[in-house]
Amino acid sequence: MRKILIIGAGKSSSYLIKYLLDKSQSENLHITIGDLNVENAKKLVGTHPNTTIIHLDVFNAESRTKAVKQADIVVSMLPARFHIEVAKDCISYKKHMVTASYISKEMQALDNDAKANNLIFMNEIGVDPGIDHMSAMQVIDSIRDKGGKMILFESFTGGLVAPESDNNLWNYKFTWNPRNVVVAGQGGAAKFLQENQFKYIPYDRLFRRTEFLDVDDYGRFEAYANRDSLKYQHVYGLDHAKTLYRGTMRRVGFSRAWHVFVQLGMTDDSYTIDDSINMSYRDFVNAFLPYSPTDSVELKFRHALKIDQDDIVWDKFLELDIFNSEKMVELDKATPAQILQKILMDSWTLSPEDKDMIVMYHKFGYELNGKKYQIDSTMVTLGNDQTYTAMSKTVGLPVAIATLAILNGKIKTPGVQIPITKEVYTPILKELESYDIVFKEHKVPYLGYNPLNL
Amino acid sequence: MRKILIIGAGKSSSYLIKYLLDKSQSENLHITIGDLNVENAKKLVGTHPNTTIIHLDVFNAESRTKAVKQADIVVSMLPARFHIEVAKDCISYKKHMVTASYISKEMQALDNDAKANNLIFMNEIGVDPGIDHMSAMQVIDSIRDKGGKMILFESFTGGLVAPESDNNLWNYKFTWNPRNVVVAGQGGAAKFLQENQFKYIPYDRLFRRTEFLDVDDYGRFEAYANRDSLKYQHVYGLDHAKTLYRGTMRRVGFSRAWHVFVQLGMTDDSYTIDDSINMSYRDFVNAFLPYSPTDSVELKFRHALKIDQDDIVWDKFLELDIFNSEKMVELDKATPAQILQKILMDSWTLSPEDKDMIVMYHKFGYELNGKKYQIDSTMVTLGNDQTYTAMSKTVGLPVAIATLAILNGKIKTPGVQIPITKEVYTPILKELESYDIVFKEHKVPYLGYNPLNL
Repeated sequence: MRKILIIGAGKSSSYLIKYLLDKSQSENLHITIGDLNVENAKKLVGTHPNTTIIHLDVFNAESRTKAVKQADIVVSMLPARFHIEVAKDCISYKKHMVTASYISKEMQALDNDAKANNLIFMNEIGVDPGIDHMSAMQVIDSIRDKGGKMILFESFTGGLVAPESDNNLWNYKFTWNPRNVVVAGQGGAAKFLQENQFKYIPYDRLFRRTEFLDVDDYGRFEAYANRDSLKYQHVYGLDHAKTLYRGTMRRVGFSRAWHVFVQLGMTDDSYTIDDSINMSYRDFVNAFLPYSPTDSVELKFRHALKIDQDDIVWDKFLELDIFNSEKMVELDKATPAQILQKILMDSWTLSPEDKDMIVMYHKFGYELNGKKYQIDSTMVTLGNDQTYTAMSKTVGLPVAIATLAILNGKIKTPGVQIPITKEVYTPILKELESYDIVFKEHKVPYLGYNPLNL
Repeated sequence: MRKILIIGAGKSSSYLIKYLLDKSQSENLHITIGDLNVENAKKLVGTHPNTTIIHLDVFNAESRTKAVKQADIVVSMLPARFHIEVAKDCISYKKHMVTASYISKEMQALDNDAKANNLIFMNEIGVDPGIDHMSAMQVIDSIRDKGGKMILFESFTGGLVAPESDNNLWNYKFTWNPRNVVVAGQGGAAKFLQENQFKYIPYDRLFRRTEFLDVDDYGRFEAYANRDSLKYQHVYGLDHAKTLYRGTMRRVGFSRAWHVFVQLGMTDDSYTIDDSINMSYRDFVNAFLPYSPTDSVELKFRHALKIDQDDIVWDKFLELDIFNSEKMVELDKATPAQILQKILMDSWTLSPEDKDMIVMYHKFGYELNGKKYQIDSTMVTLGNDQTYTAMSKTVGLPVAIATLAILNGKIKTPGVQIPITKEVYTPILKELESYDIVFKEHKVPYLGYNPLNL
């Protein structure tokens, strides 16, 4: 039996565990799942043989090292900041490791040790980061293999609600950590490259500088810029590209309305409001508007943001019930962002029957024999239910496939790495297709960054 | 001879030195001026007797302690972060100390030592902080003395260009550190109290939430909120006030135009632009606007900010010449704020014949015998020339008067303090009047925070 240790059986582990259980007989696998709370693991595993569920606290060195020692490969599905102690154990006891998280500096520092021990430390092999790396590099490599030169790369991902469950005016529900949605884009200007010019967007303009993306059968989306579009420029070999842009997808209209919260300061996470526990939703909104002895919070809000009474954006705020004077914030000394998150969770929490959706859109511009070409590549995955979500599928399946491919010696180059080599992405993307995670490529005229085709 | 050591002979020391030199015979004073660069001190002192100019590096402990030892009182006009070593010497050698700076934590920590040695460490005795404390407390104390209860306090200060030198469309020139003007308001939401409600303004709305202030003979000003209006609530004894607001004054229209720079991200000081040295002013502006193969930077700017071609704000930007493609930024790896500062210094630097102006506006609301009253108090001081500026007058004179009052035993309560007691402010405000620094009080109807009187 080959022994796989999975640490963390949260939301994103359902497909990972299912894939490995389904293969456990044919591939001769024993799967140990360790978590602080074993209930979710029990639900996911059911009565399946070849599994052990253990109580595991990664901060308890004794139980952690004991579990790592007994495994052949370790998959950490914990939040990124908890990986490093596990990773050090994997070096000590010579185990491969797989995570879906961004490589931290501490993780990168283990590269020499991993290589010296012939260990594969595969990271960023979820959806974003993960499937985006693999699907982009497959097209970029194929363009290069035929002699093309990359001049443009744009990449967008969105975690959204599936069309059949899309029934609010924002066309949005929380399918992942709500906090990340509320503070998205904060912490510094977004930076990217358009036609060889560096461009910067401050937070207070981020949600007004969106662009549209059309996806076959799913209609139109919009995207706002990620903080650093240049992060993978060198890693992808795009040092001479003229346009580099990475963004986050929403349904059209979301960003324009979200911008109102940004402008008012309701997404600020840098200070707390002393008396937030005694505030109604209406009081909270009013804290960002001038005092008036006569005017309503509604009119002050519309006036401050210059919203006409028949503007469709207005109904979005009414739908969230932010002007309600009886609903209480009920959070003590909370930041504006924490309070806004609570208000949004009233409206944007998935119902039991709701399904989620992952959308990805890449644009590849290149030159070949003096001519310019563009390929657009799109992928849409829908969730099945609230356990087997699109998010857990697109995160968990590549992790699971990579884990087995490492065990089976199909992926063999050692070191701390992300999935950008043919050795890694070719078998994984191929197998993902059998799970309906498929990229559709379209040849389109090369426009550069010129969406109006002027 | 009583010996005064002045450390720092920069822009704000001219009136300080003049005042003490003028009194040096009658008051039997010897004044030692220490600076890293003695040239400015030489100019200010001329051939006056009773003075010594020394080269002084505050980081050189030996020369610093030697100078402190020989003095009876030490005035530090250095930037605030440089005071602390001098202050520790003053404790060691039992000397009084005066600064115009905010009290740092390190300074406050010397309070017990100062009291134990019967030493007066007077701080925040310039203009803002300084004259604002004294003039506010004089009115607040007089209201209390007649049995009134403070319910509103608003206070505004502006360092501006004098009307006779006010010849640009922004009605603004740099009369003090330009950097502080460019980054003003950054670092967190402004917080204040209006009619018992806490209000918050994020940076991206700060310059849109201004209010108007009319000053006799000087016309209309506007004010935007300072970061923390509640800073002196307790110190001033205003714990039960319903409205507390502190702000910065500009001429009307400045803030609306400045808001454009904020929105575009041009005041950001948190990242550097790699190739800034090769940028023209036009390139710099264009970095905050979308790429377009056809549209001009001007039209993209007007479109992004929704500025009509006949809007008066537009001419303000043309006046700054920000669309010039030949003027070069010439700063290497500069932040947007540094580049904007350079561009503004082209237009907003005082000419040799220009004069500056300090404006202050307080509002005091109170209840007495069941009725509500309000007193508005204003002060305007104009500069004489570029050496004897309004800024150096309003900073330097209170420092100088306090220094002599301490030497003469008129101010005698020891400890680390700010000028909010009658013992301190009464003689200083009285003497300032003889230098034309005069507050005019007007009784006005109490409006609360209700500027439209609805």
